[in-house]
Amino acid sequence: MNGAESLADAVIASGVTVCFCNPGTTEMTLVAAFAARPEMRLVLGLHESVIAAAADGYARMTRTPALVLAHQGPGFANAIANLHNARRACSPVVVLVGAQPRWHEPFDSPLSCDITSLAVPVSGWVRTAASAHDLSRDVTRAIAAALTPPGQVATLVIPADCQWDPGRACEPIARAESSRPPDAATVARAVAHLSGGGRTALLVGGAALDEVPLRLAADIAATSACELLVEAFPARLACGQGLPSLTRVPYMAEAASDVFDGIDRVLLCGAKRPVSFFGYQDSPRDLIPAHVHVEETVAPDADVVVTLTEILERLGPRPPASAPRAAQSAGVPTGRLTPRSVAATVAALLPNESIVIDEAMSAALNHLRYAASAAPHSYLTLTGGACGMALGCAVGAAVASPRRRVITIVGDGSAMYAVQALWTQAREGLDVVTLVCANRAYRILQMEYLHVLGEEVPPRAANLFGLTRPPLDWVSLARGLGVRAKRVETIAALVDALQAGFAASGPSLVEVAL
Amino acid sequence: MNGAESLADAVIASGVTVCFCNPGTTEMTLVAAFAARPEMRLVLGLHESVIAAAADGYARMTRTPALVLAHQGPGFANAIANLHNARRACSPVVVLVGAQPRWHEPFDSPLSCDITSLAVPVSGWVRTAASAHDLSRDVTRAIAAALTPPGQVATLVIPADCQWDPGRACEPIARAESSRPPDAATVARAVAHLSGGGRTALLVGGAALDEVPLRLAADIAATSACELLVEAFPARLACGQGLPSLTRVPYMAEAASDVFDGIDRVLLCGAKRPVSFFGYQDSPRDLIPAHVHVEETVAPDADVVVTLTEILERLGPRPPASAPRAAQSAGVPTGRLTPRSVAATVAALLPNESIVIDEAMSAALNHLRYAASAAPHSYLTLTGGACGMALGCAVGAAVASPRRRVITIVGDGSAMYAVQALWTQAREGLDVVTLVCANRAYRILQMEYLHVLGEEVPPRAANLFGLTRPPLDWVSLARGLGVRAKRVETIAALVDALQAGFAASGPSLVEVAL
Repeated sequence: MNGAESLADAVIASGVTVCFCNPGTTEMTLVAAFAARPEMRLVLGLHESVIAAAADGYARMTRTPALVLAHQGPGFANAIANLHNARRACSPVVVLVGAQPRWHEPFDSPLSCDITSLAVPVSGWVRTAASAHDLSRDVTRAIAAALTPPGQVATLVIPADCQWDPGRACEPIARAESSRPPDAATVARAVAHLSGGGRTALLVGGAALDEVPLRLAADIAATSACELLVEAFPARLACGQGLPSLTRVPYMAEAASDVFDGIDRVLLCGAKRPVSFFGYQDSPRDLIPAHVHVEETVAPDADVVVTLTEILERLGPRPPASAPRAAQSAGVPTGRLTPRSVAATVAALLPNESIVIDEAMSAALNHLRYAASAAPHSYLTLTGGACGMALGCAVGAAVASPRRRVITIVGDGSAMYAVQALWTQAREGLDVVTLVCANRAYRILQMEYLHVLGEEVPPRAANLFGLTRPPLDWVSLARGLGVRAKRVETIAALVDALQAGFAASGPSLVEVAL
Repeated sequence: MNGAESLADAVIASGVTVCFCNPGTTEMTLVAAFAARPEMRLVLGLHESVIAAAADGYARMTRTPALVLAHQGPGFANAIANLHNARRACSPVVVLVGAQPRWHEPFDSPLSCDITSLAVPVSGWVRTAASAHDLSRDVTRAIAAALTPPGQVATLVIPADCQWDPGRACEPIARAESSRPPDAATVARAVAHLSGGGRTALLVGGAALDEVPLRLAADIAATSACELLVEAFPARLACGQGLPSLTRVPYMAEAASDVFDGIDRVLLCGAKRPVSFFGYQDSPRDLIPAHVHVEETVAPDADVVVTLTEILERLGPRPPASAPRAAQSAGVPTGRLTPRSVAATVAALLPNESIVIDEAMSAALNHLRYAASAAPHSYLTLTGGACGMALGCAVGAAVASPRRRVITIVGDGSAMYAVQALWTQAREGLDVVTLVCANRAYRILQMEYLHVLGEEVPPRAANLFGLTRPPLDWVSLARGLGVRAKRVETIAALVDALQAGFAASGPSLVEVAL
């Protein structure tokens, strides 16, 4: 048994059975070990951004890690942007990076570069394997690190000699480290706030966005008359008919100040304190006004269900269950295609238990306007702001949830960062419908220019934000990557394309002319 | 004058007038400053890998830096793989990375990440601007650092407040730091080796690959009967009819040992000591056998022309000029399309003074077989081994050399890493012909698997190296990005497509069925 084989056995024994990969020569021994073990599903991406986003999507849906297999420093570097998003999503991800044999490192061969320096900014845990003998133990530690609440990226650099030298079997990790139990004083303070005067808001995020804690939060809100807010960029939010309706905290200070108007205190439940996405010259940096009291009731690594249950019990009897809301869709809108009418159309047609991935950038704020009237679904957003997440994230979400439909709503600018993901969707036959919102611009940059400079965008700058000259032809692009595609210019055509996509097996793409 | 404006003025005054960009909000003030200065050419890429490769290609052709403008950590991360190639090419490149205003950093907003940690592995010089007042001086230092022989990547991180706060004018850099003069003892040793007994080889690389030093090296070879070898992955090699013919040092140990067979000593001229690209279990790590004496005659940062001239003068009278070789093309081959016949066809049809960019991976060793019979041209290769260089490099080479034709020879696997570059080629109307060698496989990995594992590739591993299921349709892909394209399955069709591409204005792509 060589090191790679011992690693593969340890990974599978730990319950990790998917590897998103783009390997090179220094990972060949790992490839051989994985290829010899049919329990391990091997999914190829044609760029490392795809496989990193896929592992993020997989982790968001399963709360367990997949592997990312990347080739030395430059291959790892290609994965960084989407590992950054995974880090912000607190997704458990295990990255395996091959490297030169240790005795070859001093030669500074062409691909050599400092992988650790690249890995640290996006990884909560980084280690370079020191021997084949310990490799299986190293990887179980990486898996345990990835699963440490609330979840993180763990990167293990594996010199090639540690793959081919003799290894040894290792005990799999017993189970994930569990979340911290609630602190009695924290619970007591939360109960006092919720029972006291003034207006309180629960700001939910992270692990609090699952169905069970959301229903607990809704019960707390019904009991105490507090507000329910949700963080701006949820990693995975349970929403749709029958689920609590939440107000999203905008990511810009001006809009956020409206949301917090009249609020006296904010209790953070799994969410970080919200800050302005960018620092502008004349805007507040902290989205919560200074006079509002802010307190962390459930830390991101704490057990949210136990904590909210305890708070609810202390608040007194639960309110009588309110009459179930009529599970009624808002219906397909009329008029022309706009970001809002696209969002309304998607909500009206959304299959039950589907997964919506939203990287629509300038149009991204629209989904939650209509989500409450849609069928129950999971809603995944761009947690880290690094463009190019959605198409690869859909790969991972679909691999994780083969019985659920995935709908990706993505801006044309964003989609171009990792268009290669469509090929993997086709190869794996994944049930993904991609809506490319084709406004043929970096619209969000047009808006941000105005925000930062306070003046209209001059022509030479506008040229940098325009995706015309030449226009991107998404139908040709998708076909080139093996995905059937259609351009739609009316809501009726969008409805047809969505229905066809949801009914078919395998991926499709719809270029939505905006 | 704000900091960004002072930077833009200093950059232009220093002679840097091209910026390859993919900016975001934190770079808006820089965008405004550049947009207001028509001397600065702004070239948009739809992924940062494109703009990094473009700056590399531009630097290889001009020996001067272009700017790369990237958005915070994740945007910079997307550029790393091709900056790695630029670093290995010793290309002068100046990377400007926007960051949050310094007072916003502590808030750890979604895009925040440690840019310096990401930058160090690929940059010879990294600095974070500390004030708007000093920003113009910072950027002139970055330019000077990039131009320090033999050339390097210089990364300047610029917090947004340093862009919009008041700046001040700064003296442009006077001129590039010059290369080191030769050391008399080194020259004397080289002359002694070349005049002594046994067989000596000059191994040329880096700055020695220009026409003038190559002719000096050829004269030295003619005078002293030494061999002429060239490093495996030249950043820019002058070759073609009338230029010295060189033997390329293979990047694998087995093949390299044939090249060094019978050689007693190797004099390095601008080249690093060649090492095996990968460390294998049973192969030598050093490509030069242990009994061969190796000596650095021209360091990468030394003045190669002055040194070789001095050596030549000391060797005695120059040999009579040999009769000019018949400038005769080897002609278009017959038979079917293979990597070799494609290379021969390209060589036969190559326009005078064209630029050949080679990232054909498993097929990359073929160009130099035929280059000597081709019209004079520049030959650029994948210096750092990070896939995805060629299409973006072609952007930069074409921007740098608008009167020269660019021909990119790229594997289908490699081309997929940065396919977005085709769009920039179309937008800028660049005269680039891209030949995608479509063997529908990571062929080089099939070979490497055999090399590392010593066994045939099993089906589940072969699946990871195959680009079928679905096949990539390069004609659709190129059209989707605004580039005219054709698939060819015979040499005759390839000839037609190449001739049409060379005759036309703007880019085209040829999918070569292999």
